[in-house]
Amino acid sequence: MAGDAVATNKRVVLKRHVTGFPTEEDMEVVVDTVPLRVPAGSPAMLVQNLYLSCDPWMRGRMSKHDDGGAAETAPDFVVGETLVNFGVGKVIDSTHPAFKASDLVWGMSGWEEYTLVSQPESLFKVNHTDLPLSYYTGVLGLTGLTAYASFMELGRPKRGDFVFVSAASGAVGQIAGQLAKIAGCYVVGSAGSDEKVDLLKTKFGFDDAFNYKSEADLAAALKRRLPDGIDIYVDNVGGATLDAALLNMRWGGRVVVCGMISQYNLNEPYGLRNMYCIIPKALRVEGFNATGYFHMYSRFEEEMARYIREGKVVVVQDVVEGIESAPAALIGLFSGKNVGKQLVALARE
Amino acid sequence: MAGDAVATNKRVVLKRHVTGFPTEEDMEVVVDTVPLRVPAGSPAMLVQNLYLSCDPWMRGRMSKHDDGGAAETAPDFVVGETLVNFGVGKVIDSTHPAFKASDLVWGMSGWEEYTLVSQPESLFKVNHTDLPLSYYTGVLGLTGLTAYASFMELGRPKRGDFVFVSAASGAVGQIAGQLAKIAGCYVVGSAGSDEKVDLLKTKFGFDDAFNYKSEADLAAALKRRLPDGIDIYVDNVGGATLDAALLNMRWGGRVVVCGMISQYNLNEPYGLRNMYCIIPKALRVEGFNATGYFHMYSRFEEEMARYIREGKVVVVQDVVEGIESAPAALIGLFSGKNVGKQLVALARE
Repeated sequence: MAGDAVATNKRVVLKRHVTGFPTEEDMEVVVDTVPLRVPAGSPAMLVQNLYLSCDPWMRGRMSKHDDGGAAETAPDFVVGETLVNFGVGKVIDSTHPAFKASDLVWGMSGWEEYTLVSQPESLFKVNHTDLPLSYYTGVLGLTGLTAYASFMELGRPKRGDFVFVSAASGAVGQIAGQLAKIAGCYVVGSAGSDEKVDLLKTKFGFDDAFNYKSEADLAAALKRRLPDGIDIYVDNVGGATLDAALLNMRWGGRVVVCGMISQYNLNEPYGLRNMYCIIPKALRVEGFNATGYFHMYSRFEEEMARYIREGKVVVVQDVVEGIESAPAALIGLFSGKNVGKQLVALARE
Repeated sequence: MAGDAVATNKRVVLKRHVTGFPTEEDMEVVVDTVPLRVPAGSPAMLVQNLYLSCDPWMRGRMSKHDDGGAAETAPDFVVGETLVNFGVGKVIDSTHPAFKASDLVWGMSGWEEYTLVSQPESLFKVNHTDLPLSYYTGVLGLTGLTAYASFMELGRPKRGDFVFVSAASGAVGQIAGQLAKIAGCYVVGSAGSDEKVDLLKTKFGFDDAFNYKSEADLAAALKRRLPDGIDIYVDNVGGATLDAALLNMRWGGRVVVCGMISQYNLNEPYGLRNMYCIIPKALRVEGFNATGYFHMYSRFEEEMARYIREGKVVVVQDVVEGIESAPAALIGLFSGKNVGKQLVALARE
């Protein structure tokens, strides 16, 4: 790398804090330049971002919280600063002994073409370079870890368990459902279009699936498809679907809450009416936050790479090209525009 | 016992199924007679009931559910039949080898003066006859087991944990709070009168307590008293107090739901708005149902008897006399009329 080389660096910055449904106007793509080597000083890595992950949880950081987001998973984004999320990249230059130029990595990065990363613990090396690199935004990255650790550790599946997954064709849902099949469970998924329902049945191997937008009574829709009830509900949506699932849980059931995408843009959250069910049915409802599970990553990566190679886990990705497409792709998550894992390709290896 | 002796037997029967707040008119005390020995046929025990336990969970069985209560902890009571709940009694006659006349027992019995019990597994022998016999309706019975198993097994307390208990002077709350002190926790309780708040501080050793009826903002009331947040919330009330607690939970906190007394008489349950907190804070919300914990009873009974003898657990009971007083005592639970564990004394040993 030439010592004084610079590159243009397009970045997505937060233009204003968001209330309600986010729009493209809440973000802005700005252009500046970046030196292509790590500046003198503390050890760091300059990463060229190849793929950015679009995740619903970013929405929370786009609001302004009274406490700055201290009670959230991560602090509020700052107006005028680059958005941050998980991504996949290539090390261009490194003054840190743990990384060298040309290393492929995934981890926390900026929504920009090049990011200077100073914390080595926020990057993981890509170990399975024979698999599509973009998978490290999803099935082999945080999304996969979320599906795996939440379903296995909180869901504690047993062969024959009845499993329900919402937003089932989405990034976490599609993997959770396939892990449930691997574990010998009977799996029903819900999604927001007939196209997605077809995907669940034909591509991901769900035993049954339904379009929640076509069902007037979600509790009845579940009862029809899971007449003996639900042992594990992998909740990615919250709200009315969670209420309906609570009514259909079996004794000792586990509700694993990975997300509540139906709630993120509401100023007034849905009022959950069926939580009383947890007492007579001895239910456990648990929120999953990946922060506590990175110690499982290596084990997970090996197991998931094996499932992918064996064809036991297949992946559907929704890829848009170029950082200019990132804001719309992020917003599309909240209307269910994406089919499968949403990501942005900036450059290809 | 004279072979042909009979006794009058006053019984509380359900007069009609209940909607909304129960009234005395929903129940009726009827009088008939009972032979004072077990009839020929299957082995059984005739029990003279000495103390009846009044518990909020009986309310659920007084309603008529579409499915007969199959989804509840226990099936609906039948109109015209005697109410059923835990109580303490003395065996008058037995044709079952596991029990003999004069044995003191606690377990599932009728709301009547004499009950013919045919299932020996529904009765436990009273092992600590030096302690007040009435304690087996509460601290040494199902109430105590509920407080102990829920707090220890689901709450998993660590020394220094911040604990919040609602309905804290009530049957389960007073014991849970004292167990939390034994475990080295900092304990705050809420109750519905200043008299009960005084009890919490002076009698049960809570570190702090408040009258929820005097607080306009429950979340702020908790924040003032537990500024670093809550590790374990022992929920006996549900509704707005649960919502406020969710906002104040710490990372990895446990919400142990033993009851939701604020909800039992509502036709339209409170809509819980803060369940989203379980994701960023990785919270576990778990419903406790004693059905799965009777295997712990012997261990619990010994440990709790020791705490009582050592003065580490003290008990406040609210005792009314005579079965005619039972309906009003049960109803009083729902307006917080009782101070401490509510029970009915029918006869004394």
